[in-house]
Amino acid sequence: MSEHGRSTVIPAEETRDDVNFLASSGSRRAFLRSGTLATIATAALAACKPGARGADSSSAVATPATGAVTGGTMPVVVPPTPRETADAMDAMHEKGVKAFPAKTEGKGNVLLEPRIEKGVKIYELTAKKTPWEVTPGVKVEAWAYNGMVPGPQIRVREGDRVRVVLHNELPESTVIHFHGLEVPNNQDGVPFMTQPPVKPGDSYTYEFTAPNSGSHMYHSHHNSTKQVSLGLLGAFIIEPKNRANEPHSDIDTVLILNDGLGGYTLNGKGFPATEPLVAKLGQTLRVRFMNEGMMIHPMHLHGMHMTVITKDGWPLPYPYRCDTLNIAPGERWDVLVKCTNPGTWAFHCHILPHAESETGMFGMVTALVVKA
Amino acid sequence: MSEHGRSTVIPAEETRDDVNFLASSGSRRAFLRSGTLATIATAALAACKPGARGADSSSAVATPATGAVTGGTMPVVVPPTPRETADAMDAMHEKGVKAFPAKTEGKGNVLLEPRIEKGVKIYELTAKKTPWEVTPGVKVEAWAYNGMVPGPQIRVREGDRVRVVLHNELPESTVIHFHGLEVPNNQDGVPFMTQPPVKPGDSYTYEFTAPNSGSHMYHSHHNSTKQVSLGLLGAFIIEPKNRANEPHSDIDTVLILNDGLGGYTLNGKGFPATEPLVAKLGQTLRVRFMNEGMMIHPMHLHGMHMTVITKDGWPLPYPYRCDTLNIAPGERWDVLVKCTNPGTWAFHCHILPHAESETGMFGMVTALVVKA
Amino acid sequence: MSEHGRSTVIPAEETRDDVNFLASSGSRRAFLRSGTLATIATAALAACKPGARGADSSSAVATPATGAVTGGTMPVVVPPTPRETADAMDAMHEKGVKAFPAKTEGKGNVLLEPRIEKGVKIYELTAKKTPWEVTPGVKVEAWAYNGMVPGPQIRVREGDRVRVVLHNELPESTVIHFHGLEVPNNQDGVPFMTQPPVKPGDSYTYEFTAPNSGSHMYHSHHNSTKQVSLGLLGAFIIEPKNRANEPHSDIDTVLILNDGLGGYTLNGKGFPATEPLVAKLGQTLRVRFMNEGMMIHPMHLHGMHMTVITKDGWPLPYPYRCDTLNIAPGERWDVLVKCTNPGTWAFHCHILPHAESETGMFGMVTALVVKA
Repeated sequence: MSEHGRSTVIPAEETRDDVNFLASSGSRRAFLRSGTLATIATAALAACKPGARGADSSSAVATPATGAVTGGTMPVVVPPTPRETADAMDAMHEKGVKAFPAKTEGKGNVLLEPRIEKGVKIYELTAKKTPWEVTPGVKVEAWAYNGMVPGPQIRVREGDRVRVVLHNELPESTVIHFHGLEVPNNQDGVPFMTQPPVKPGDSYTYEFTAPNSGSHMYHSHHNSTKQVSLGLLGAFIIEPKNRANEPHSDIDTVLILNDGLGGYTLNGKGFPATEPLVAKLGQTLRVRFMNEGMMIHPMHLHGMHMTVITKDGWPLPYPYRCDTLNIAPGERWDVLVKCTNPGTWAFHCHILPHAESETGMFGMVTALVVKA
Repeated sequence: MSEHGRSTVIPAEETRDDVNFLASSGSRRAFLRSGTLATIATAALAACKPGARGADSSSAVATPATGAVTGGTMPVVVPPTPRETADAMDAMHEKGVKAFPAKTEGKGNVLLEPRIEKGVKIYELTAKKTPWEVTPGVKVEAWAYNGMVPGPQIRVREGDRVRVVLHNELPESTVIHFHGLEVPNNQDGVPFMTQPPVKPGDSYTYEFTAPNSGSHMYHSHHNSTKQVSLGLLGAFIIEPKNRANEPHSDIDTVLILNDGLGGYTLNGKGFPATEPLVAKLGQTLRVRFMNEGMMIHPMHLHGMHMTVITKDGWPLPYPYRCDTLNIAPGERWDVLVKCTNPGTWAFHCHILPHAESETGMFGMVTALVVKA
Repeated sequence: MSEHGRSTVIPAEETRDDVNFLASSGSRRAFLRSGTLATIATAALAACKPGARGADSSSAVATPATGAVTGGTMPVVVPPTPRETADAMDAMHEKGVKAFPAKTEGKGNVLLEPRIEKGVKIYELTAKKTPWEVTPGVKVEAWAYNGMVPGPQIRVREGDRVRVVLHNELPESTVIHFHGLEVPNNQDGVPFMTQPPVKPGDSYTYEFTAPNSGSHMYHSHHNSTKQVSLGLLGAFIIEPKNRANEPHSDIDTVLILNDGLGGYTLNGKGFPATEPLVAKLGQTLRVRFMNEGMMIHPMHLHGMHMTVITKDGWPLPYPYRCDTLNIAPGERWDVLVKCTNPGTWAFHCHILPHAESETGMFGMVTALVVKA
């Protein structure tokens, strides 16, 4: 379902009449995009009701939309019953859920395999404008590393020698800051403080030994309000040298929260194009939350609790349990979920306007599927 | 005092001239409602000062308000002294505090006694439009369970068999999600994911064995940005099977934070209509904070500290102390307060525009009264 | 660099042509103040490019700005290369960083030495309108204690007898609330609840024995949304009676976060006028974060982690490590930083629009300088 979210692009397929009731109601659908006009939207739903109940709905709906009265007789407008209004709204909600997980072009946070030269793991990152499909048919112009949002996942081991080569094909200078990594100062990526900005067309090489382990990030630190919002961000995970220190997990996943270009997203996609997390009954899931947005996002898991084990990559001395974890910009939190409750469970930001509007769930919503 | 908060309804009693200085100043009072125009408001207070000091204030005030100059002589406008301006403002602040706790119609979060059939605790919840008085004279049209905001408190014991029957008398479909309860998937209340929405006029029955103990919630999970904001929310507390695991408390209370319809509220009311917490010196108070709003609310207690004991119903491995607890949407935090400091103590959200404007305290403010 | 932030005052020195490219571009610079118009601003940078590359830039720039075409021939407008656009933006960013730490008039949070009478530590605080320079050339009219924002730092020891004399030279009533201090009720500073407001021109005396140790605050609790925002706030630190309980630190510093008058500030100043924290390699730095604003501020330290040791002055049972600490209004958090990584490290709020715009870093940015 493509009409969700804070998109600025109206996709062509919006005009498809695949839900009968919604025929010829383009302007109403655009209007409904605003989740803040909830009450008015309900009224609008009512106003768009067919003039006569039981008539063919696609032609009847056209009347109030076009204003064209074909005959000399004024149609008698019968207000819809609450049930009819509810059915219309519910149909939109159902469409969204049934579309999940919706197919879109492009996938972010894909593991980047390094090239290894003389024992150095080399990662090439090209920053460039990239069309990015957030939900089916809704494309934005992202600024991305290697054509994906979030950028490719970098995953090394504590003590690895790492080289990151940045190629700037953007119309602005940029840099990379390794957020959370305790690298030497001249590898920290702050323009004019630790390095010159990397100009359009230029390349720049970072190199360091992977320091403190944990869930970290990399992102632009130049004109960052704009550049990070447009997509110049990714996960940088350092596994500990001694894996015995790691808690057991069967599935290890990253969930990057964002509220910039493309609206409210999880790993660069909005519901229903978000990727579900899938586990077998009894498995332990590790989720690495990372907030690359400008707002807090308290993530709520249905059906099971989360055990919080690390903060910004650092193990908590005493893990604690919760079902709603508040994640602020720049923070990373790792949690374990013991998947003991079978079913498809909603997993979403609990700031409700980041997750649901009159037309259904959108944005920061996914599901944890526990297969029996 | 009724001019506080983000109300959309202007009550009739606004026109009462019970504070002499405020006579004939209806438009100024409306203007003062906006807490963000603080500086300008002070100027407005000054501008509305009587034309001549010491003159009968009610008639004098009318002059600048109406613009009617009755004689041929222009009145000499003497600006008020800072003291006079301050007195006018302070009178409004005093009125609010003196009115606390102000009487309003309706009370939320009232314990709901179940009907018991064959060992099953049965709770009937009717969702329906309900006029709701937030502060004296300020009524909004809530969507409520059993005519109250928050809905009735449900309180069961771990292992109890529980049946919740939802009757939908709203003009929209709805559902109930049991937030924090690890119920079977088909009782989780997510439309099209775990159940069909409950249509207007229909009823729906949830049934489960009370799972993980703690401070939980129930609320709509359909069109939830609107439905929860309008009032479809309540506390769902599960006491542990083994009460020996519970920390001692003399008073056990729930504080539901909200920022939807009716503005900033605690248990559905805005200051001065909020309910004070009352304890005897030496008693231990348990407060179960629940955030059903869209914003964070860092709650600050004066005079004593809070010991944080649970997160989302789960005991913290090591409780910690604080006086300001940041509570994000969807979160629940339980704290203990050892009431060692006698007096009436302010207890409020420390995002100050949620608690005080030029005209006095409003919204998310209550008091803890410790009686010596 | 003075064009950053949310200032309302345009300083005279804005017209200096100290960066050649920026000559005659006053209107563009004003336009660029809005960090939210990032994309458009880049276009504006391009539009202001000289009509002919390589020509004298100051005269050439004047053409599109004034619209005055001096000859009969239309100049051929050659769009700038991405590199030229980037250079122009980077020059602004560089200017900001190079200016750090920029000199401004006035310094807040200066330790206030008490007068001691009969064993009582006496602090005199005068609340008064005060011009306050937030960044070079940007002055606002603050409401301040003793002419500084934050007010003077009060630092006593647990068990000390303390007297605070408030002199109100403001045009409004005011009071002082000792935020976090468990003082007797009649010293708590809440108008009409614990004391009358202190009228303009009046004085008021608070006296108590310094209670619970830790990082606390004092601020107005009357018309507080306005009064605290304008600057009536400060640090109140109570050292523990038994210093053996305190963790070792070589440097002990306070960082008061604010987002009121003067925009996003650290100890009353915006970048580049913020004060850097300076330590020698191997030293331990204690930072006492205090949020006196209306928004959360997740503070992110580059290069090293922070160990969180207290919450609201209360020792955490188990300290934990992080690099990004979310601080909500009213909260205080103390952290220790072991300064093991030499260099100049950015230290800023990670809500990026609080820290960087198109024209460079501003607001809640400072640096930790670790000297080898």
